[in-house]
Amino acid sequence: MNNTQYSLLNKIDSPKDLKDMSIDYLPLVCDELRQYIIEQLATNPGHLGSSLGVVELTVALHYVFNTPYDRIVWDVGHQAYGHKILTGRREAFKTNRQFGGLCGFPNPKESEYDSFGVGHSSTSISAALGMSIAAKLKGENRQVVAVIGDGSMTGGLAFEGLNNASINPNNLLIILNDNNMAIDPIKGGLSHYLTSIHFSKTYNKIRHNLYQGLRKMGLMSDTMRNRILRLGNSLKSLQANANQNNIFEGLNIRYFGPVDGHDVESLVEILSQLKTYTGPKVLHIITKKGKGYEPAEKEVTTWHAPGVFDVKTGQRIKKRAEGEPPLFQEVFGNTLLELAQKNKRIVGITPAMPSGCSMNIMMNAMPNRTFDVGIAEGHAVTFSAGLAKDGMMPFCNIYSSFMQRAYDNVIHDVALQNLNVVFCLDRAGIVGNDGATHQGQFDLTMFRCIPNMTIGVPRNEHELRNLMYTAQLDNKGPFMIRYPRGKGILADWKNEMKELPIGKGEVLREGKNVAIVGVGPILYTAEKAIERFEKENVDAKIGLYDLKFLKPLDDELLHSIGKNYSLIYTIEDGTIIGGVGSAVEEWMMDNGYQPKIVRLGLPDTFVEHGSQAELFGMLGLDVEGIYKRMRSEE
Amino acid sequence: MNNTQYSLLNKIDSPKDLKDMSIDYLPLVCDELRQYIIEQLATNPGHLGSSLGVVELTVALHYVFNTPYDRIVWDVGHQAYGHKILTGRREAFKTNRQFGGLCGFPNPKESEYDSFGVGHSSTSISAALGMSIAAKLKGENRQVVAVIGDGSMTGGLAFEGLNNASINPNNLLIILNDNNMAIDPIKGGLSHYLTSIHFSKTYNKIRHNLYQGLRKMGLMSDTMRNRILRLGNSLKSLQANANQNNIFEGLNIRYFGPVDGHDVESLVEILSQLKTYTGPKVLHIITKKGKGYEPAEKEVTTWHAPGVFDVKTGQRIKKRAEGEPPLFQEVFGNTLLELAQKNKRIVGITPAMPSGCSMNIMMNAMPNRTFDVGIAEGHAVTFSAGLAKDGMMPFCNIYSSFMQRAYDNVIHDVALQNLNVVFCLDRAGIVGNDGATHQGQFDLTMFRCIPNMTIGVPRNEHELRNLMYTAQLDNKGPFMIRYPRGKGILADWKNEMKELPIGKGEVLREGKNVAIVGVGPILYTAEKAIERFEKENVDAKIGLYDLKFLKPLDDELLHSIGKNYSLIYTIEDGTIIGGVGSAVEEWMMDNGYQPKIVRLGLPDTFVEHGSQAELFGMLGLDVEGIYKRMRSEE
Repeated sequence: MNNTQYSLLNKIDSPKDLKDMSIDYLPLVCDELRQYIIEQLATNPGHLGSSLGVVELTVALHYVFNTPYDRIVWDVGHQAYGHKILTGRREAFKTNRQFGGLCGFPNPKESEYDSFGVGHSSTSISAALGMSIAAKLKGENRQVVAVIGDGSMTGGLAFEGLNNASINPNNLLIILNDNNMAIDPIKGGLSHYLTSIHFSKTYNKIRHNLYQGLRKMGLMSDTMRNRILRLGNSLKSLQANANQNNIFEGLNIRYFGPVDGHDVESLVEILSQLKTYTGPKVLHIITKKGKGYEPAEKEVTTWHAPGVFDVKTGQRIKKRAEGEPPLFQEVFGNTLLELAQKNKRIVGITPAMPSGCSMNIMMNAMPNRTFDVGIAEGHAVTFSAGLAKDGMMPFCNIYSSFMQRAYDNVIHDVALQNLNVVFCLDRAGIVGNDGATHQGQFDLTMFRCIPNMTIGVPRNEHELRNLMYTAQLDNKGPFMIRYPRGKGILADWKNEMKELPIGKGEVLREGKNVAIVGVGPILYTAEKAIERFEKENVDAKIGLYDLKFLKPLDDELLHSIGKNYSLIYTIEDGTIIGGVGSAVEEWMMDNGYQPKIVRLGLPDTFVEHGSQAELFGMLGLDVEGIYKRMRSEE
Repeated sequence: MNNTQYSLLNKIDSPKDLKDMSIDYLPLVCDELRQYIIEQLATNPGHLGSSLGVVELTVALHYVFNTPYDRIVWDVGHQAYGHKILTGRREAFKTNRQFGGLCGFPNPKESEYDSFGVGHSSTSISAALGMSIAAKLKGENRQVVAVIGDGSMTGGLAFEGLNNASINPNNLLIILNDNNMAIDPIKGGLSHYLTSIHFSKTYNKIRHNLYQGLRKMGLMSDTMRNRILRLGNSLKSLQANANQNNIFEGLNIRYFGPVDGHDVESLVEILSQLKTYTGPKVLHIITKKGKGYEPAEKEVTTWHAPGVFDVKTGQRIKKRAEGEPPLFQEVFGNTLLELAQKNKRIVGITPAMPSGCSMNIMMNAMPNRTFDVGIAEGHAVTFSAGLAKDGMMPFCNIYSSFMQRAYDNVIHDVALQNLNVVFCLDRAGIVGNDGATHQGQFDLTMFRCIPNMTIGVPRNEHELRNLMYTAQLDNKGPFMIRYPRGKGILADWKNEMKELPIGKGEVLREGKNVAIVGVGPILYTAEKAIERFEKENVDAKIGLYDLKFLKPLDDELLHSIGKNYSLIYTIEDGTIIGGVGSAVEEWMMDNGYQPKIVRLGLPDTFVEHGSQAELFGMLGLDVEGIYKRMRSEE
């Protein structure tokens, strides 16, 4: 399909243009929208599968609702590409996820159609409920819609939102986008029955008859019936649920569905009806991830975010050349299995990221010792704590920015009891195109202040392996290892693992007067900046130190740094507030040294999307930036 | 009942002694245990209501299970007094919650019978599941029991735990302790029916008949039945739940109940049976909070933690004298209502702490504008974000240590979108007798690194009111106000509120060479230490500065401090890692000042229980401690 074939899509510059079309055209709009997404993502990678799955829903929502006055809150938001394209960003979508381009997630700074900022999972019901109640309190007749997938529903926050959905008057509509392929979209039995009775004009009569029938069977007393009608509190509703139509009804949320989420005309009809119903309600739709693109329908996980691909052949185009260093993720995954084969106490825990973090390697080999707990970071940590308390050695792998969701679990369930849980914080520091919601910029600060924690930061793959090896030895307490997204440093990554002394850093280069002190792979960048600086300043001899452990700090190494240098740069790929730089400043002050200290790291702002290289450049944390900074301090 | 009347209890030095008794004696043991708890708490305050409610359950659990080999995980743990008394701590219980005495919550450091450390809500299912799976992996035939209240069930973490309870083979028993007084303990209809069929020997036959009956009614197809039996995934189960007995069964957890939780002999019988069932299961028991002590049964909220009281009359003995300063909590509660009466945009949000934080004052006056969302801190924050996004001005009050549970919600849902949510962090700093799980020691560090945040710390009631007033003005972005538990400073607290300039501190005393810089009421302690020091050192003139805002910092004030002092003490009632002291060090270094800086604050350890005064003393943060520190630096 070439550009001239987007004959309808090209006319849609805002939802108003869509609304002006006859309903008959909507299937064609869906076809074009779907094709446009596939075409764009083939060359500019992004989240393909989930966006294809909600094409019809997206068109129907904007056809029926009065956006942006009415609010659509997309849970997670990686499925909102169609939404972006229909809301004035068709051309701009070509810059999706690129530096300076569109954000890969809904973002209110980008468009008034993006009603709430998202990126992390399971927030939509809570946020949309707040917006819906705000509308009620302000006397506005606004519709608020939350669109949430069945995966996001496993997050506790979604349950907390559901549990509160009926606490105060509101018109919230929750659309449960159920795209699990294991479920046959044609539902029989009671589910169908529910759909029909809900949409029937004789709804209440049938509902009454249902109660009567259950009463006759002895399944329902009048007391019980009255209680069910009365109860607002969730748990009581859960209990009463045995007599309710389903969990949502048990929580006092009217339930409709399931319906085919790929029938755009039906969706328009149903949504138009639902718009007129007051009170919180859920519409359950069945969709297919990757819908309309055969390779994506067939291999759902692979095509969630496939990278660059050939539209016609469905061939994914790999960018990595032979002989290049592996991803840190691959090193983690292979090393975990290697360690688990020797240490029977090791178990692996991941909240819904087995392929992203490469725990699937151990999962395939040892299914009984790996646990994918769903999108449930808090549970992942507390569950690990329970395993550790009774003698197992859990490796709990959570992306740095998602670990923010399990902060109390780390403090209260692990650190306070000094349990041997190994936390592997994947995607720490700058993650790149996923942008502000996904940058792992706070972990060093947020965990440095927690008692009993050990925090190790590998500089390269060998160190990652050594840290993992060390962490699984006995009595190490809570042990955190944080490493970035993407390629490592060493093509020959598979070293013989050895125990590292806890809290011992390493001298990478001895220097004179000036030194750089830091943690992580960014030290390689610093080294290149030093080389350039020394080349241009032949008298300069700049030290370079890898603390390796942010906690505990290496007293001996820091004493020698404190004694020998008058100017210290600290460097880290986390926030400069309270992180490595602050730790060095605190230490120097506590120990009576007064060098000048310049902290390099992430500024006190959220960092938007772009490639990792572009972002490091923007932040002055590439070779050029570090070099310039050193020149400016001369 | 005098001491000689504890004729059975006095013989129980461990659960073994209990097991040696005939079952006929158990009701008497319960009577004595209940009486002992009441007698002890009358003079040594603690959580009365919930501990009285689980007396029979506690006795039955230790009678049936082989503790400590079998594990009991008490959710929250404030109901575990009976458990402590029966497990070798009868006499030690007299020191409950006191400095150096028993911890008010289960604590593995205290006893091997305390299988998991608790204090915060909703962790028990996840932790117990981990322990149960650890037992399976190690081939141990261990029983693991989680005891969780209906309140704790509203936390998303509990749902995440339930959602995972059947993922791998385990023998977890979840006891749902349902003590809501609004529920009649005698259940009719289907609930009773379920109990009976579950315990019937013809269970499967009746189950089959039930399916047949539903099928005949057209409520159940064979496909549906098979799917129900097959499905493991929670959400699918939730959907299938319409055809299931209840939510737990929908999640593949066998459900038993509800049963009377005050019939100890029945409980023993039921638990003995359940012990032999494999797989995850839930027993739903109905109990009465405060059971067996009339005043506590009547006024449940008041008697949750009643303080000192007269056993006979049920009279609570108030300690506060006339004319004393109010609690910070009371000032918050009254001020919130006062502001809400003028600013129609203000709404109040609390996760299950309306009386604890005094939001009940606004709740009574403005029920439509206050939201108690249950134990659901994450939802409280994201819900507030939704309200703020559409124009309301939420005051979200969460205890400092519980705010750890909503860290990502603050970052991802509020700060990233720069929304006007006012976070009131009650019980910040040292909280006292609740101990290590409840100290609010990390908030300053964990939120200082978040972009867009304003963090204000009132020194007294007037400042609290001024900060609250300032925070609700337009366009202030995320605004955090943190204040401690307990009494304020000023008896005459009700000042005329005024707007404070953001990021402006205050000179409390001008000094020479040496100054103390900090935030919060601890500055009054510092002032007394200064007075003592100056009295003994007539030449000394020590400065005292209230930053008032940790973020943004007061550049002007800090420049004057940097210029005028060579020795600066920083003081705060939070961790010294990354907090106020580090902020001052960072600022001084960034701005080219090199004073000596000594950070006073909480050390890098968890802080156990005791009175606030005792703990400040232990930590060197009382007048004596600060004075001594100043002497030692001379």
